[in-house]
Amino acid sequence: MAITSHDVARLAGVSQATVSRALRGDPRVTSTTLDRVRQAAQALNYVPSEAGRSLSTSSSRRIGVVISDLTNPFYPHLVGPLHDELERLDYRMMLFTERTESAIATQRLLDRSIDGVVLATATLDSALPDELGRRSLPFVFLNREADNVPADSAVVDNRKGGGLVAENLVRLGHRDVAMIGGPQDTSTGRDRELGFRLGLAEAGVALPEQYIRRGPFDFGTGYEALAALWELRPRPTAVFCGNDVIAIGALNAALRHGIRIPEELTLIGFDDIPMAGWESFDLTTVRHDLHEMARTSARLLAERIDNPGLAPRKEVFTPEIVFRGTSSHT
Amino acid sequence: MAITSHDVARLAGVSQATVSRALRGDPRVTSTTLDRVRQAAQALNYVPSEAGRSLSTSSSRRIGVVISDLTNPFYPHLVGPLHDELERLDYRMMLFTERTESAIATQRLLDRSIDGVVLATATLDSALPDELGRRSLPFVFLNREADNVPADSAVVDNRKGGGLVAENLVRLGHRDVAMIGGPQDTSTGRDRELGFRLGLAEAGVALPEQYIRRGPFDFGTGYEALAALWELRPRPTAVFCGNDVIAIGALNAALRHGIRIPEELTLIGFDDIPMAGWESFDLTTVRHDLHEMARTSARLLAERIDNPGLAPRKEVFTPEIVFRGTSSHT
Repeated sequence: MAITSHDVARLAGVSQATVSRALRGDPRVTSTTLDRVRQAAQALNYVPSEAGRSLSTSSSRRIGVVISDLTNPFYPHLVGPLHDELERLDYRMMLFTERTESAIATQRLLDRSIDGVVLATATLDSALPDELGRRSLPFVFLNREADNVPADSAVVDNRKGGGLVAENLVRLGHRDVAMIGGPQDTSTGRDRELGFRLGLAEAGVALPEQYIRRGPFDFGTGYEALAALWELRPRPTAVFCGNDVIAIGALNAALRHGIRIPEELTLIGFDDIPMAGWESFDLTTVRHDLHEMARTSARLLAERIDNPGLAPRKEVFTPEIVFRGTSSHT
Repeated sequence: MAITSHDVARLAGVSQATVSRALRGDPRVTSTTLDRVRQAAQALNYVPSEAGRSLSTSSSRRIGVVISDLTNPFYPHLVGPLHDELERLDYRMMLFTERTESAIATQRLLDRSIDGVVLATATLDSALPDELGRRSLPFVFLNREADNVPADSAVVDNRKGGGLVAENLVRLGHRDVAMIGGPQDTSTGRDRELGFRLGLAEAGVALPEQYIRRGPFDFGTGYEALAALWELRPRPTAVFCGNDVIAIGALNAALRHGIRIPEELTLIGFDDIPMAGWESFDLTTVRHDLHEMARTSARLLAERIDNPGLAPRKEVFTPEIVFRGTSSHT
């Protein structure tokens, strides 16, 4: 016969409710009681059934995290802090990679096996946020957001970040500047470019269309676009890249084509992922607190699950520029 | 009242069993029937409950994947192919990061909400494989394995890989060689070092203890160890690094200390992650098919779940050396 929580309660000399609370990590259980329950559970070889608990409480304590390509070095840096904060809040993390953002994956997100969703790679036209809203499944935007969707979000002030880059390039004397931006259907891609354009316009610096390239936020985008930009005349003296991964692709293309950085060309990224600080890259970039942003999204979601009636909240993180070896005066 | 699969069956004009099969992705359902069921489900706004299905079939179609630090660039390259292959086999992936490999996390793995486990970061002395075995929860080793645990595994011939490096360094004229290895409590760390030592011994080249450093498979290990090795006299003319991430750390230390690669020092890694081929690193390394290894582990696990009585199988992938810019003749 299967061991139940009642057996554990009897052995530990506590109520069955206390056993449930203890094994769920409820902070109201004292450490002495917790030890006693754990010892009893271990002695009996008892393992609680999540499926059973799920039906009895209609809460799975599971959070779905939708993230695009994990091989993009940006996202793994969000996953660690997100995972830890969700654990602290007594939620388990289920990872969905973007390639499954199909009808079937949506259905899985929507079934009753998860309590909420972190959307880390939403596009501006994604149907998923609306769908989640219609089904009343709590969700939060992390890093990227969608317009006109009343939802919680933890994001960077991307427009301000783009503006900072423009301002500093102008201050360094650059007038022939180019951009390798991210996708226009992402809030990060669009807003970083918008802030950059506005900042340049304010300083009276032109940004002709052929000096703007765009693509996915990946190595290949920077690698290919830099070679193309280098064919233009006048050559740009500075290139702002939509994120660090694009900038690292551009740096590698510069190496390949013998373009001296920063003597011939200034390169600036966005995000300050740890790799940006490596000697190999020594990348000037726009820093924001990506770990805290990830943790904040977990807290916003947990609060939303507990209080579905809350007004949507937007936590905006302020970026700052970090000067390293890829930028210089003209 | 909640919509049930019986309502969907009635609207689609098929049996309830067919609805279940169709929404589970069972290949026996024709595409015509599948379309009809999906349209009916959509019309009724029906979402199947995984929790309910889990209790009725005692299968959750969920696989737990235990992976250490995702910010280590090696692991994300395993996660993508693993995820896709599990999807193809109609399993969902639940990711557990190693920092949760505590008693509580083990308990979660062991509860009835998952059908099997992929262990990608097992240490040789980990208690988890034994625990899974005792509970009869199917699992497979991916990349790393444990000794004396009769279980399925998909691994590289690490000993052979280490031997290849020794053989080639000797061929290139190196006699003062060093190693920055991974942890000795991992099969990859131990076997790559063992193969390297045996290969050198066979060629009559000594490897004194102070020329061996070890640490976690991360950037910091290579970065710190290379500086320390460079203080030794005679200086090593070649360093074999336990994986590419360690080698990239070592390359950055070389940049920092002005050590010319490969003129003054040959550096060789292991794994051939995509980054190894970037111009910034151009790393000579040991290649193996890590995507196929990940997919193989998914298939081994699925077969184990279907046939618990199968004898344990070990799929071993053969490594080969890839020469790039960080290696040369003495």
